[in-house]
Amino acid sequence: MVFGLVGEDGLPFWRRKVPTEVPKGPEHMLRTIAANIDDALAETGTAREAVMAVGVGMPGKVDADRGICMGASNLRLRDYPVAAKIREATGLPCYINNDVKMYIYGEALYGAAKDSRHVLGVTIGTGLAGALIIDGEPYGGYRNISGEIGHIPIDGVKRVCNCGMVGCLETVVSAPGLARSAREAVLAGERTLLADYHDDPAELTAVDVSRAFDAGDQTAIAIMRHAGRCLGDVLAYLIPMLSPDAVIIGGGVALAGERLLGTVREVLHAKVSKSYIESLKLETAVHNDDAGVIGSAAWAVKKSKE
Amino acid sequence: MVFGLVGEDGLPFWRRKVPTEVPKGPEHMLRTIAANIDDALAETGTAREAVMAVGVGMPGKVDADRGICMGASNLRLRDYPVAAKIREATGLPCYINNDVKMYIYGEALYGAAKDSRHVLGVTIGTGLAGALIIDGEPYGGYRNISGEIGHIPIDGVKRVCNCGMVGCLETVVSAPGLARSAREAVLAGERTLLADYHDDPAELTAVDVSRAFDAGDQTAIAIMRHAGRCLGDVLAYLIPMLSPDAVIIGGGVALAGERLLGTVREVLHAKVSKSYIESLKLETAVHNDDAGVIGSAAWAVKKSKE
Repeated sequence: MVFGLVGEDGLPFWRRKVPTEVPKGPEHMLRTIAANIDDALAETGTAREAVMAVGVGMPGKVDADRGICMGASNLRLRDYPVAAKIREATGLPCYINNDVKMYIYGEALYGAAKDSRHVLGVTIGTGLAGALIIDGEPYGGYRNISGEIGHIPIDGVKRVCNCGMVGCLETVVSAPGLARSAREAVLAGERTLLADYHDDPAELTAVDVSRAFDAGDQTAIAIMRHAGRCLGDVLAYLIPMLSPDAVIIGGGVALAGERLLGTVREVLHAKVSKSYIESLKLETAVHNDDAGVIGSAAWAVKKSKE
Repeated sequence: MVFGLVGEDGLPFWRRKVPTEVPKGPEHMLRTIAANIDDALAETGTAREAVMAVGVGMPGKVDADRGICMGASNLRLRDYPVAAKIREATGLPCYINNDVKMYIYGEALYGAAKDSRHVLGVTIGTGLAGALIIDGEPYGGYRNISGEIGHIPIDGVKRVCNCGMVGCLETVVSAPGLARSAREAVLAGERTLLADYHDDPAELTAVDVSRAFDAGDQTAIAIMRHAGRCLGDVLAYLIPMLSPDAVIIGGGVALAGERLLGTVREVLHAKVSKSYIESLKLETAVHNDDAGVIGSAAWAVKKSKE
């Protein structure tokens, strides 16, 4: 869990990262949240009465209007009234929404897309998901579940996904997907620097792929190009439908930067009409861990005024 | 051009279809528009003062805020102040927007998607294009050009498109695309009923494909399935990103109905998570030619009140 105390400028001036400890159950999570909010206030000398609201960006299906987590398998929650529970535990008003939506909302308000009205965002980390900002506001769609593009099946990809389907985009374009590509290349006996980084190829990471890429390693370059092509292909479908002002790539894998986006740009130039891309901003997020905190805080402030 | 006089119930009570006669130039189009508006009023005994506004749905890139057609190659217009010209020619306030957006807006207001907040629409006729209704309003995106999904390149399709690119979706999924598939099958010597319909295979139409499909012709069934798979594949990318309440298929080819949508449903069930499709309405438009008139009229009324 990433905590932040956000000032009137919309940016955090206190932050902390703690393990979620899911197996200890939701009551433990609530205690952790309440304790860290206490710490934030104490350490910054902020009065509880000065806090406008608590904002939470969380994974899974979130009913933002009712403050309920409809389903988040990673957190083992289902139909759980997160906002009411946090309100009870902290005495503060609480508003929740999906974490990817809040991350991209943060980037749209104060980050890479801060002058853009319509933003298509993708976060790539342990998984891959999208979010839309339409006219400056987070878009939810039916049931507020828009954005799960990590599970679009990609032709030619045979990997089984955690979701049970085969060939999902996130089996290739994600930190574990890149690590898996590296591992498979080493196990297949490819001549690559990746073989030298760890005794056990199971220890290879997405960061290793970037490192080998920078050393000119052909295997790493091919892995990054394949991921870039898969991501570019999906964006080539979405961009003409949406005509966004900006496409923002966030999450841990966004640290790969142009190693990944270079190929994405090539695909878009080949496949998408110039009208859509000549002034399109395609960039990585700038706030990283802070983006979700910034977006969640802004969301809570906005909702608390409604 | 399709004209309609729309009553307070939002539906046309007078309608007419006339050739556009593009080669005669924009001034001729304006005279035709003014003359048909005169006829509509005279034939229905409607006073000019009772008209709230003229709404126009037109192809191409439309700057709806300024009332300017930025570019419509079919109409040979570029940076043309359509709304001001029509206002001048008719003495009536005029508001314009893109025709596909207005068609789907009409279906969202009074047609197949009338109880849906978020609608993904596709019209399939001489070409293919999309439109989005978000929170009940037509969505434009940057420059109001969202929706040109007819030119997404489809893997494995080698046809050259009118736009100059290769493999565009609309080279397969459109009335000319279906006719071309039929023609190619006949010229390739396939044993098909389609060979018996016309002396010259160049005369084959999309309607012929539906007719042969209904007679159980395997070639026609394969043509329709291929088109359905291409359309379904594109929707499989768009639906998870947008989580729409309804997907509406309009335009002349929508008359193929379940012959086309049957395959689309199969693709969606195979590729898209149940959360997005279990209560998704996937239907053909109900207003056909009227949909654009209904949407354009509603748009003009809405804008005239702003």
